[in-house]
Amino acid sequence: MRKGVMRPGHIQIRVLDVEEALKHYRDLIGLIEVERDAQGRVYLKGWTEVDKFSVVLREADEPGMDFVGYKVLDNQTLEKLHGELIEHGCNVEEIPAGELNGCGRRIRFDSPTGHMFEIYAEKERTGKWGVENVNPEAWPRGLKGMKATRFDHCLLYGPNIKGTLDLFRDVLGFELAEQVLDPEGTRIAQFLTVGMKAHDVAFIEHPEPGKFHHASFILDTWEDVLRAADLISMEDVSLDIGPTRHGLTHGKTIYFFDPSGNRSEVFCDGDYHYPDHEPVTWQAEQLGKAIFYHDRVLNDRFLTVLT
Amino acid sequence: MRKGVMRPGHIQIRVLDVEEALKHYRDLIGLIEVERDAQGRVYLKGWTEVDKFSVVLREADEPGMDFVGYKVLDNQTLEKLHGELIEHGCNVEEIPAGELNGCGRRIRFDSPTGHMFEIYAEKERTGKWGVENVNPEAWPRGLKGMKATRFDHCLLYGPNIKGTLDLFRDVLGFELAEQVLDPEGTRIAQFLTVGMKAHDVAFIEHPEPGKFHHASFILDTWEDVLRAADLISMEDVSLDIGPTRHGLTHGKTIYFFDPSGNRSEVFCDGDYHYPDHEPVTWQAEQLGKAIFYHDRVLNDRFLTVLT
Amino acid sequence: MRKGVMRPGHIQIRVLDVEEALKHYRDLIGLIEVERDAQGRVYLKGWTEVDKFSVVLREADEPGMDFVGYKVLDNQTLEKLHGELIEHGCNVEEIPAGELNGCGRRIRFDSPTGHMFEIYAEKERTGKWGVENVNPEAWPRGLKGMKATRFDHCLLYGPNIKGTLDLFRDVLGFELAEQVLDPEGTRIAQFLTVGMKAHDVAFIEHPEPGKFHHASFILDTWEDVLRAADLISMEDVSLDIGPTRHGLTHGKTIYFFDPSGNRSEVFCDGDYHYPDHEPVTWQAEQLGKAIFYHDRVLNDRFLTVLT
Amino acid sequence: MRKGVMRPGHIQIRVLDVEEALKHYRDLIGLIEVERDAQGRVYLKGWTEVDKFSVVLREADEPGMDFVGYKVLDNQTLEKLHGELIEHGCNVEEIPAGELNGCGRRIRFDSPTGHMFEIYAEKERTGKWGVENVNPEAWPRGLKGMKATRFDHCLLYGPNIKGTLDLFRDVLGFELAEQVLDPEGTRIAQFLTVGMKAHDVAFIEHPEPGKFHHASFILDTWEDVLRAADLISMEDVSLDIGPTRHGLTHGKTIYFFDPSGNRSEVFCDGDYHYPDHEPVTWQAEQLGKAIFYHDRVLNDRFLTVLT
Repeated sequence: MRKGVMRPGHIQIRVLDVEEALKHYRDLIGLIEVERDAQGRVYLKGWTEVDKFSVVLREADEPGMDFVGYKVLDNQTLEKLHGELIEHGCNVEEIPAGELNGCGRRIRFDSPTGHMFEIYAEKERTGKWGVENVNPEAWPRGLKGMKATRFDHCLLYGPNIKGTLDLFRDVLGFELAEQVLDPEGTRIAQFLTVGMKAHDVAFIEHPEPGKFHHASFILDTWEDVLRAADLISMEDVSLDIGPTRHGLTHGKTIYFFDPSGNRSEVFCDGDYHYPDHEPVTWQAEQLGKAIFYHDRVLNDRFLTVLT
Repeated sequence: MRKGVMRPGHIQIRVLDVEEALKHYRDLIGLIEVERDAQGRVYLKGWTEVDKFSVVLREADEPGMDFVGYKVLDNQTLEKLHGELIEHGCNVEEIPAGELNGCGRRIRFDSPTGHMFEIYAEKERTGKWGVENVNPEAWPRGLKGMKATRFDHCLLYGPNIKGTLDLFRDVLGFELAEQVLDPEGTRIAQFLTVGMKAHDVAFIEHPEPGKFHHASFILDTWEDVLRAADLISMEDVSLDIGPTRHGLTHGKTIYFFDPSGNRSEVFCDGDYHYPDHEPVTWQAEQLGKAIFYHDRVLNDRFLTVLT
Repeated sequence: MRKGVMRPGHIQIRVLDVEEALKHYRDLIGLIEVERDAQGRVYLKGWTEVDKFSVVLREADEPGMDFVGYKVLDNQTLEKLHGELIEHGCNVEEIPAGELNGCGRRIRFDSPTGHMFEIYAEKERTGKWGVENVNPEAWPRGLKGMKATRFDHCLLYGPNIKGTLDLFRDVLGFELAEQVLDPEGTRIAQFLTVGMKAHDVAFIEHPEPGKFHHASFILDTWEDVLRAADLISMEDVSLDIGPTRHGLTHGKTIYFFDPSGNRSEVFCDGDYHYPDHEPVTWQAEQLGKAIFYHDRVLNDRFLTVLT
Repeated sequence: MRKGVMRPGHIQIRVLDVEEALKHYRDLIGLIEVERDAQGRVYLKGWTEVDKFSVVLREADEPGMDFVGYKVLDNQTLEKLHGELIEHGCNVEEIPAGELNGCGRRIRFDSPTGHMFEIYAEKERTGKWGVENVNPEAWPRGLKGMKATRFDHCLLYGPNIKGTLDLFRDVLGFELAEQVLDPEGTRIAQFLTVGMKAHDVAFIEHPEPGKFHHASFILDTWEDVLRAADLISMEDVSLDIGPTRHGLTHGKTIYFFDPSGNRSEVFCDGDYHYPDHEPVTWQAEQLGKAIFYHDRVLNDRFLTVLT
C-alpha cells in the first residue's frame, strides 16, 4: 500500500440478461443483492465486505468487463494519484459521485492492455452483511449457494503487460508478487498485489486488448470448493476446470461460466505477500503446472475463451 | 454379510518392477511394507487393518490383477462356501495355507467376467499398525505419503457381469448397492457390497475378460484427497483424474497410475448401505455424471486404459 | 449382523414442550420433520435415511428416553428373535403395527440396565429426503442447521451392563467393539455394534436404572462439527463439551442439551468394526482420555447429568 | 502499513531448558531449527517465512518474553522511526547488527505496558524452507508435528494499554482492529494490526507490567487444528483450551503450554482488516464469548497464568 491504494473495490460486468445473471452471481456464487439503479444495473457484495457493493451487473449485448475499481485511503490520495495518472500518460476521465449508487467520485483510466480501471476514495459503508459490528457472530444465517465472502481479483488478457506493470507499480503502488517468464526471460503473466493477498489483479500477455478472463471470489475452505463443485453440477452450470489447485499462488480453486459466457472463479487459501518478498517465478515451460498444479496441462479453453 | 463373507481382505497386483512399485504403494500411497516372501512377493497393508497384509505385489511381465481375496467368518463358513462354489459351476482350486505368508487355506474360483477370486478364513492378526489395542492413540506417527488407511475395493472389467452378480449375490451373499442401466434396462455397471460400504467390488461390462481397472484405498478426508493430488504432482506421477467426486457412491476421489500402468484410486466418504436399501440406479445417458460428478463427461482413458 | 438385526432404527425421546424441542431437533440439528400422530408425537428423520422416521418426540412431564428400536431383516427374523427374547427372560411386549405411524409390529423388551428396547421388521420406506434414487445428487438443498445425516446411537446408563451385553450379544447378535475396564478387570463401559460402525448402542455402569445420557447423530465432516459449535453459540444453546475428539471410537464430536435437558451429540468419522476385530480396551485409569481425548479430564456434568 | 512497519518479524522467548523447549517449538509446533549462536540461543522459523528466523529461544531462570521485533521497509524508515520513538518518550536503545545472527541493526524501545519491542530493517533472506522460489511446490516434505507455517502475533498483559495504543498507532502506524470495552467504555483489550491480518499484536489491561500471555503460530486449516490437538494429547502436553473458535477475530484455535510454562497458540483463518475498517467491538459483559466463542465462559487459567 505504498501509494495509498487499499484494495479491489468493485467490478462492473456486462451480462446478456440481468435476471439470468442474478441466478449465477446471487443464487449460485452467493453474493448479496444490494440494490438496482435507474439504469437497471444490479449491485451485489460479498457478505464480509464493509462497503455497499463490489459487483455491478450491467445488461449489454456483449459479455465482458466494463471496469474494475480500487479504493484508496482518502480524497487527498485520490487527488494525488489523479495527477500522477495524467502525468503517466493515461487517458483519464472523472466520473462524478453518485454515478454508481453510494460511490464517491471516481478517476477512470486506461491501461496498455486496453482495460479500464478506476480509483475512488469513498463508498457508502453499510457494514458486513448479516452480522453486527458489536459482538459479531462468526457468520450470518441465510447465505446462499457457494457463500462467497468477497470479491478478490480479476484476470485480464491484453498486450503490453510490461507497460501495465509500470503503471500499476510506479503510479499505484502495486507489487509484482508472481510471474511467468518465457525462456527468453520475457514476462508473459504477472500477478500484482497491493496488500498481503497473492494477487489483487493479474494480467496475461495477449494480442487482443481489453479481454476479460475471469472475476474471482473467496471461499472459506477447500470443503467449500467441493460444495461449489457440487452446486455447479446440480445446477448444470458450465464447468471450466476444478476442483484443483493452482501452482501460481497455490490457491485451491474451481472455474465455471456465467450464463453470458463470462468466467467465474471461487477459491480459498494461497500464498501471502509482503513488500520485501521476491516475486515468485514460474517458467513458461511449466505453464501447465503453474496454472493447474494437479493436471499439469492446460486446457485450450483456459487460454482462448475470453469475454 | 448374509453368507459369512466379511470383507475384501487382499489383492495380488502384478507389477513390472517391485522396487519401483514400492515407491508407489508404500512411499506414495502410504501402505505399510510388511514383509517379502521366498518368491520375492512384497506384502503391504493399510495402517488400520488388523490382519497381516492386504496388498501383495508380484513382479511379472504384464501388469494387472492376479486375484482378490475375501475373508469369511470361520473355517466352517469356508467349507460351506467351497461346496456352493463348486455346485454353482465355478472352476475351484484349493490353495494350501502358507502359500501367502501368514494366510490360511484359500479357495480360489473364477467369475464369468474372467477374474480370479478367493475366500479364506484365517490370516495372521498383527493388529493396527503403530497404535496399541489398549488405550489406542488417534493415529500413528511415521505414516508416509497419502497415509491410506485400508484397501477398499477393486473395479473389474469383463463380459457377463450379470452372471457374476448371480455368483456374488447367490453364493457369497453380496448385495447390489448401485448400478448403471442402459436405455433397454441392461445393467452395464454394478457395485456390490457385503457390508455397509458403498462397494466391496465393482464390475463394468466389457468384451475382454479378466481386465483390471483399479484398486482403491481409503483416505480420511477431502483434505487428504487434496494432499494426495499435491503429492501426485510433486512426484510427477501420471494423473488420471481428480480431485473430484463420483456420482455413483458420491465418494470424493482421485485416480492415478502406478509405474507399471495399473490404475490406483484413493478416496474418502461416500454413501452407506444396509440390506434393506434399494439399489441406487444411474442411467447410462448420465454415465459421465455417474462417474465424474463435477465434469459430467468421461475421459476416454477411464473407459479404455485397463491392465 | 449375525442374528439379522440391521441397525438402530428409531428412538422415542420425552420432551417437556414439543414446539421448543422442534427448534432443537429440526431447526438446530437439522432433522427433517416428517409428520405428527394423533397423540401429538412428532416424527423426524435424518435426510440420508430411507425409512420414514428415526426420531419420535413425545411431550411428557419428565425428559428422557422411552425406547430405542432396531430394525431386523424380515418378519421371520422378528418371530425368531421374539421367541429368543422370551426364552432369555426379558419382559416382552408386542406393540401392534401402526402404533407408530408407518411402522410395523414391534417387539418390546427390557434390559438389565432398565431400558426399553424394540425390534421391528417393517417401516414405510420413503427414501432419502430431497434426493432421488435414480441419478441422485450429492446432497439435497434446503437442509437446516447442523444438517445431521442420520440417527447413529444412544448412550445409556444403568446397572448390570454385563447382563445387558449378554442380551445384546447372545440374543441380538451385537458385538463388543470397545470397552472400559477398571483395574480389577470389571467392564464399566461397553460400546456395542451390529454392523461396521464403532457403536450402535453404548452402556455405562451406573446404580440408577433406565437413565439416558445422549442420542447421537452423524455429521459429514470435522468442518460440520465446527459449524455445529458455531450454531450452538449463535442460538445460545447449552453446550456440554466440544468440539473435541473421543478416545473411545476416535469420533470427532460435540455435546449439547435440548431445551428439556436431554443431551445430544453430533459427530463424524471414527473407527470401523468387523466381526473378527478384537474389542478395543481403554483402562479406567485413562477414562478422561478415553472420553475426551484432548482434555484428558472428565467434567462432572458428563458423568452425572442424565435424563 | 502507514509508517513503513511491515510485520512481526521475531520474538525472543525465555525457556528453562533449551533442549526441552526444542521438543515443543521444533518437534511439536513444527518450526524449523535454523541455527544456534555463541550465547546458546536457538533460532527457528516457520517454513513459509522468507527471512532467516522468527523465534529465538534463550535459556533463563524465568520463562517469559524478552522482546518482539517488527520488520520495517528499509533503513530510511528505521531511522525516521528511531527519531519518533525518542520524541514519543520511549526508552530507546540501539542493538548493533549481528547481535542476533543474520539480523541488522535493531532499535529497541519499551511500551507503557512494560514490554520490550524492536524494529529492524534487515535480516538475512534465506527464502521459504523446503521449496524453491522458481516453480515452487505447494508445500515441502519433511515438516514435523503441527507444521506451523509462520509466527503470527503475541498477546501481552500490562498496565496502560491506552498509552500503548497511542505508541503503536501514532508512531508505528498500527491500527485498532478489535477491542473489548467495559460498561464505562474503557478499553480493556486491544488487537492491533499493521497489515491485513486480524492482529499483529494484542494487549490486555493488567496491573502487573511486562507479562507474556502467548505467542501464536499459523496453521493452514481447521483439520490441522484437530491434528494439533491430537498431537498435544499423544505427547501428553499441557492443554489450556481448544479446539475452539475465538469471538474476537473468529480464528479457529488451540492453546497449550511449553515445558517452561509459556503459553503457545496455533490457529487458522479469522477476519481480515483494511485501514478503512471500523474497529470491531466486544462488550466486556460478553468477554467469555469474545475469547472462547463456543464455551462462552472464561477459564481462570486464561486470565491469570502468565509468564
